[in-house]
Amino acid sequence: MFKNIFISTTNCGIKYKNRDDLLLIKFDEPVVVAGAFTKTSMPASPVVWCKKNLPDNLAKALIVNAGNANAFTGIAGDEIVLQTANAVATALNCKPEEVFISSTGVIGEVFDYKKITDSIPELCKKLSNHESLFDQASKCIMTTDTTPKLVKKTCQIMGKNVDIIGFAKGSGMIAPNMATMLSYIFTTANIGKNTLQNILETAVNKSFNCITVDSDQSTNDTVLLFAESPHAKNPIHQQINDSHSPDLADFVDKLEELCLDLAKKIVIDGEGAKKLIEIIVEGAKTEIQAKQVAFAIANSPLVKTAIAGADPNWGRIVMAVGKSCDETTPQKLLVKIGEHPLTKNGAKHPDYIEKIVHEYLKNSEVVISVNLGIGNCYSKVWTCDLNEEYIKINKDYRS
Amino acid sequence: MFKNIFISTTNCGIKYKNRDDLLLIKFDEPVVVAGAFTKTSMPASPVVWCKKNLPDNLAKALIVNAGNANAFTGIAGDEIVLQTANAVATALNCKPEEVFISSTGVIGEVFDYKKITDSIPELCKKLSNHESLFDQASKCIMTTDTTPKLVKKTCQIMGKNVDIIGFAKGSGMIAPNMATMLSYIFTTANIGKNTLQNILETAVNKSFNCITVDSDQSTNDTVLLFAESPHAKNPIHQQINDSHSPDLADFVDKLEELCLDLAKKIVIDGEGAKKLIEIIVEGAKTEIQAKQVAFAIANSPLVKTAIAGADPNWGRIVMAVGKSCDETTPQKLLVKIGEHPLTKNGAKHPDYIEKIVHEYLKNSEVVISVNLGIGNCYSKVWTCDLNEEYIKINKDYRS
Repeated sequence: MFKNIFISTTNCGIKYKNRDDLLLIKFDEPVVVAGAFTKTSMPASPVVWCKKNLPDNLAKALIVNAGNANAFTGIAGDEIVLQTANAVATALNCKPEEVFISSTGVIGEVFDYKKITDSIPELCKKLSNHESLFDQASKCIMTTDTTPKLVKKTCQIMGKNVDIIGFAKGSGMIAPNMATMLSYIFTTANIGKNTLQNILETAVNKSFNCITVDSDQSTNDTVLLFAESPHAKNPIHQQINDSHSPDLADFVDKLEELCLDLAKKIVIDGEGAKKLIEIIVEGAKTEIQAKQVAFAIANSPLVKTAIAGADPNWGRIVMAVGKSCDETTPQKLLVKIGEHPLTKNGAKHPDYIEKIVHEYLKNSEVVISVNLGIGNCYSKVWTCDLNEEYIKINKDYRS
Repeated sequence: MFKNIFISTTNCGIKYKNRDDLLLIKFDEPVVVAGAFTKTSMPASPVVWCKKNLPDNLAKALIVNAGNANAFTGIAGDEIVLQTANAVATALNCKPEEVFISSTGVIGEVFDYKKITDSIPELCKKLSNHESLFDQASKCIMTTDTTPKLVKKTCQIMGKNVDIIGFAKGSGMIAPNMATMLSYIFTTANIGKNTLQNILETAVNKSFNCITVDSDQSTNDTVLLFAESPHAKNPIHQQINDSHSPDLADFVDKLEELCLDLAKKIVIDGEGAKKLIEIIVEGAKTEIQAKQVAFAIANSPLVKTAIAGADPNWGRIVMAVGKSCDETTPQKLLVKIGEHPLTKNGAKHPDYIEKIVHEYLKNSEVVISVNLGIGNCYSKVWTCDLNEEYIKINKDYRS
């Protein structure tokens, strides 16, 4: 299994009491790492650090704190990152650039870096190689999440079993380009750096970048994928350096599945959410157009509140299509909720029975399908319903 | 005053009981009319009708129903409009094309046009010329609005007093390009058609198109501006046909003020809203960029819920800037709430005292200012806070 990975967690006192909020992962042999990050122009200091060091370094360690995002913290924020990297590097006998760092929590508040650096000796002492620790790690990075999010897959590369395990946190400020979302994925696959990066970017675009809770995206989003060490003495298989290699097909599939599973877990844990909503837009001229319409529906507070109330108020879906696509017409548009067609010839479908759709919308997973009738491209995105709970979580003074 | 305008209202039974929901306005002499409409690709039948007839016709009558939007109703919806126009035209002895029609309410439900046409004899009998009836008219077109919205101004044209009066409805599905918003403005000014249209479009862009409640825009938005009849025997002043005429300067100012007053009344009546939020974005490279950032802040559920809780969680403002503008940097960005600077050198301002800003945010009107530090263009938009009430109003089964 993951013989190369050692994990420990502790409470460092940045924000939380009575729970661990600082995670350290050590790779016994430094590993190949790929990453994807928020596209914000206001990236947090740890994001800036990871983006800078990703291209030219292996990863020796990952350290993540919950409770403070270290975002918009200026020079002091950069200092926290530097001190953290130096302290971990000294303890693990590696270069600071081989230490990957993430933070999640409130924006704009500086904290004393000693809360992290003083905890490193204890974290190092507790480092241990046991798969159950991934579970502990996934709990340690939670903020407003109500459940930890951990997914495991097995795939075949060159006839050998290869493991992939990943965990994530995130439940608000979630939108395309990855919102306040952290995810770390580990595999025993032996893959070259550029190939790993290509595969990760494709997987992220089909999963984490297809979800939205509230249309807000954050300063700290990070996905990191850690693979086998290039120095491994007995890698499961020969290193692969071509992302289109048939040998990687099963790995690519399973990685995408794993990312999508994690992404859906984030949506369904959307602040206050009770339902997972899948939105399929077909018949668009381009994939971009399909995604634009899908997100217009997914981000409409009126659609999301209607679904919360199991109200088949499908006029709101029509409204969202109307505002986001100027090329279709009422006559061309087809809207379905579940398997129930709602529209025909620019009006309500003659077979539409509101009560049946109302019953369907009581399910915890619902599907909205739209056909724009103007092309052959499609897109699929996921969101959740919008409840009073979301307001309560985010309105309470300094949630 | 408005000697040419006759008003009546009644209950026609489309949806509401115990209140009037059908408005008829007759112009004794047909008047010059200008209009602005939703940009949706799913326009309601009455919007299609008004857009088609606006360019080549005077207005003899306006008829508005509340409780059903007659949107996405297909051929049946067009039939409702045609029957309504014909019935009013017959009763008032004019062309159907001179009858302007609006509807507001639920989308996708056909209703029996006889509910309207059968009410027309009674409406015609009750038509009366009294200024207090504008108040009655503004109440008659309400849906989820909690208060009627009526504004009156007086201006000077060529040394003569000219009146402008306008009313509006709208409180949800409000976003740029005018959402579910209806507004009708009347003036005794004597202005040519093209000039009136130019002036109205400018005023709408500076007012109704600068507000957002929930980022959703509707199928039915309509603003109509009715001026003096070209056949008036004693117009207050000579007809003006140049929108840049200095004679029109005061009229243009007062019309813009009136539109902005109405727009703000809509925002502050946003479903469940308790606060009016003004967002000023300066230092942008273009006005479009400034408006984009302003709307990113105005539409962020996280910003809007924080303001609801008087929580100076200004990191959420930074987040909204970061996601909507990739040209600025933390170092260049300045954020203020009210007169209180929050940021300096990419971090929290050293003089920032959270308690003071928390107190400020308890006001019913708050101002958020952002300077992107990359140019000289600016934009101003208005929104409201996001409360549990919004969810309650929109979640309840068929609100």
